[in-house]
Amino acid sequence: MNAPLPTHLLPTVNAREVPAAFLDALQARFGAQCSTALAVREQHGRDESAFTHVPPPAAVVFAESTADVADAVRLCAKHRVPVIPFGVGSSLEGHLLAVHGGISIDVSRMNRVLHIHAEDLTATVQPGVTRKQLNEAVKSAGLFFPIDPGADASIGGMAATRASGTNAVRYGTMRENVLALEVVTARGEVIRTGSRARKSSAGYDLTRLLVGSEGTLGIMTEVTVRLYPLPEAISAAICSFPSIEAAVRTTIAIIQMGIPIARCELLDGGTVKMVNAYAKLGLREEPMLLMEFHGSPTGVQEQAEWVQEIAGEHGGQAFEWATTPEERTRLWTARHNAYFAAIQSKPGCRAISTDTCVPISRLADCLLDSVAEADASGLPYFLVGHVGDGNFHFGYLIDPDNPQERQTAEALNDRLVHRALALEGTCTGEHGVGLHKIGFLRDEAGEGAIEMMRTLKRALDPDNILNPGKIFAL
Amino acid sequence: MNAPLPTHLLPTVNAREVPAAFLDALQARFGAQCSTALAVREQHGRDESAFTHVPPPAAVVFAESTADVADAVRLCAKHRVPVIPFGVGSSLEGHLLAVHGGISIDVSRMNRVLHIHAEDLTATVQPGVTRKQLNEAVKSAGLFFPIDPGADASIGGMAATRASGTNAVRYGTMRENVLALEVVTARGEVIRTGSRARKSSAGYDLTRLLVGSEGTLGIMTEVTVRLYPLPEAISAAICSFPSIEAAVRTTIAIIQMGIPIARCELLDGGTVKMVNAYAKLGLREEPMLLMEFHGSPTGVQEQAEWVQEIAGEHGGQAFEWATTPEERTRLWTARHNAYFAAIQSKPGCRAISTDTCVPISRLADCLLDSVAEADASGLPYFLVGHVGDGNFHFGYLIDPDNPQERQTAEALNDRLVHRALALEGTCTGEHGVGLHKIGFLRDEAGEGAIEMMRTLKRALDPDNILNPGKIFAL
Repeated sequence: MNAPLPTHLLPTVNAREVPAAFLDALQARFGAQCSTALAVREQHGRDESAFTHVPPPAAVVFAESTADVADAVRLCAKHRVPVIPFGVGSSLEGHLLAVHGGISIDVSRMNRVLHIHAEDLTATVQPGVTRKQLNEAVKSAGLFFPIDPGADASIGGMAATRASGTNAVRYGTMRENVLALEVVTARGEVIRTGSRARKSSAGYDLTRLLVGSEGTLGIMTEVTVRLYPLPEAISAAICSFPSIEAAVRTTIAIIQMGIPIARCELLDGGTVKMVNAYAKLGLREEPMLLMEFHGSPTGVQEQAEWVQEIAGEHGGQAFEWATTPEERTRLWTARHNAYFAAIQSKPGCRAISTDTCVPISRLADCLLDSVAEADASGLPYFLVGHVGDGNFHFGYLIDPDNPQERQTAEALNDRLVHRALALEGTCTGEHGVGLHKIGFLRDEAGEGAIEMMRTLKRALDPDNILNPGKIFAL
Repeated sequence: MNAPLPTHLLPTVNAREVPAAFLDALQARFGAQCSTALAVREQHGRDESAFTHVPPPAAVVFAESTADVADAVRLCAKHRVPVIPFGVGSSLEGHLLAVHGGISIDVSRMNRVLHIHAEDLTATVQPGVTRKQLNEAVKSAGLFFPIDPGADASIGGMAATRASGTNAVRYGTMRENVLALEVVTARGEVIRTGSRARKSSAGYDLTRLLVGSEGTLGIMTEVTVRLYPLPEAISAAICSFPSIEAAVRTTIAIIQMGIPIARCELLDGGTVKMVNAYAKLGLREEPMLLMEFHGSPTGVQEQAEWVQEIAGEHGGQAFEWATTPEERTRLWTARHNAYFAAIQSKPGCRAISTDTCVPISRLADCLLDSVAEADASGLPYFLVGHVGDGNFHFGYLIDPDNPQERQTAEALNDRLVHRALALEGTCTGEHGVGLHKIGFLRDEAGEGAIEMMRTLKRALDPDNILNPGKIFAL
């Protein structure tokens, strides 16, 4: 295949040249912590997006401390070289691609859990700590960190993209769960935002401005997050439905009744089939909700009874319950493997993931029309959703070198996004804008809000060195 | 008395002259909607703070629409005249004082509930809608808006100060509950931020940047908030304790166990006495927790049992329960009247309110030392607290014309704030910075974060016309 892609589907590459003096200074400061090996650079110049064909960064610095990050950024500032922070590389929207050239700062060695304040339900971590690592670290204190985007992402990356995932319907997103940050600014200065207090009215909410700024306003070097007591009881269930609509209508009713469900995930029949093939789970190949309930034993039982009643009214059947950790893991395997199961179902493919999120009452309208369009296109896809939040993902499976498939997928995505915007939703519930949704964000936010974002960017990063080319065109 | 106050306790007044051409243009555009009557101006030049002696704004515009606000701001921008938005005037930190001169825009006539999307648990209101008005409007749909700062504040003012109050321990603050805004910028342009989706990663979080910006970055003309289903069961209780420490230790245990208590308020014995005198409630004049539980009947009962057990372990006694709305109102009257009861206890006084918030494990340390200091000072005070959040308020009752009392109160506040900061807390949990906490914010945030705030302010309001002189010195 290898035919050229239509240019409007390619990221604009505008790599500035990296001065030799800069690279010399970088290597003098960082020695073995700095690599210019092609394989290392290539690994840091891509993510899980379907974007390819972008040259890798000129060098990778493996930061081990805040001082490392600050020194690297100061060198970048002096030489006006772009700098892109890198956690585990699991972002989905081209966030890590060096479209303006420059270097990558890999923070995966900054992986220490600095403080666990169990008595205050907070933890402070370095940005390279992953969510699973954090959960291991706080488990013995009877606590957990609920944000679960699926991948074992870094806390820094999750904060930078305002990630959420399966538990957000009950516990909120990174927006609600990051309390404070330490950040290196575009000038290489180290500042702190927020405190460990649960709430504050102390000036501008710099924490929330930086959360979701995708590395374009500062590089996070410490993140303080909220923790939660492990629920006394946890119960998970799957339930099959005769149609996607029935599953969605069940979800809408659960949310509108205010049932404090902890997870409410949709898989369509085709996706269940992929998961069965991948992990031999033997699930009914029909639209399915995976749910989880947290609380006291009585509370969990009560929630489960309400939900069974609602599901029954919509034709839901075959509730399968899991109360032990092992059984729950088996059920959640289905959800967490969906992405990989789908990718394996079409060898060599990449997924173009959609990420719309709409008010809950609009969920059926938004989803069902998009299913019809996807089916009509003939493109294979998976469909999963954090439907309790009105958020769902199609993953259109394309051959990355087939322009026709990419164009079909992008057209489906385009129609879905504009449908979601017309329904008062957003183009991205949790993946961020990156390279891929720059046009969608413009349509969503309007020129006035985009201009305000640009004004903030210009003010905080006048030389445009922090992850340039992402979120909006300057 | 009337001795001059020490200058460091007075706000710096630096009123720019308002050009006659500006006032002419304003009156030509707004006619009877614009007032220069002294009584009207004076009413808009003060708030509930203990600041006095600041000249009132030069005029008050009674805006009736977004276009009114935009036109007024455009005129201000053209003539570089400061503009201060005004809701109901209940702020506590001098937010409304025209320290740089200029005009007030009163949005109290913008009091329409524009949309109630019961099926999505959202409402969109004009900024002059008060919280009680909103609750009346959504009650018949079985919903409520939980943020309750005590005063019947405007939603616009509550968003601008990132208000919270009694229910925040369960439902969060304005930070968590404002989904989207319509805002008039410093140039008089109208922009929209956010959407009605429950979560979003679509670019910079302008909504959260504007929430809590105290009118210094834009003037809100529409606010979209989250609503919640009215709980199936509500139960309120008061419990007396042998000491403040016992009440606080009970609170800490409740939070650390993760009990989803909806309200957890402290009154000290002296404050209960004031409330009894004011409203003849006949409560035991001892430290007291007022609590509220929301949920299913079983859930509420379960929470109540846990809390009674914890309270019992700390010497709590005399639980008095209230399950009917009338009984609950009687109990909450005690809490809501505390401020007015205290003010009435010393005729002619003003209250200097503290607003520190600390991590829950530090609450006893922070509070008990401050009680000892307040008792030693001889100044009368009230003490109430949203202690479930680690947030509490002393109100030192001073004669506003007595510099000695003011200085004593400010010295107590100063020590309390620095104690809270040393305990990783914040100088303001919910009242905002205004004029009064500019120095405290500097101590809390550090020069780097303050400079970032200043940079944002200069970028979005280069002529410094939006509520100048608040939050930080430029």
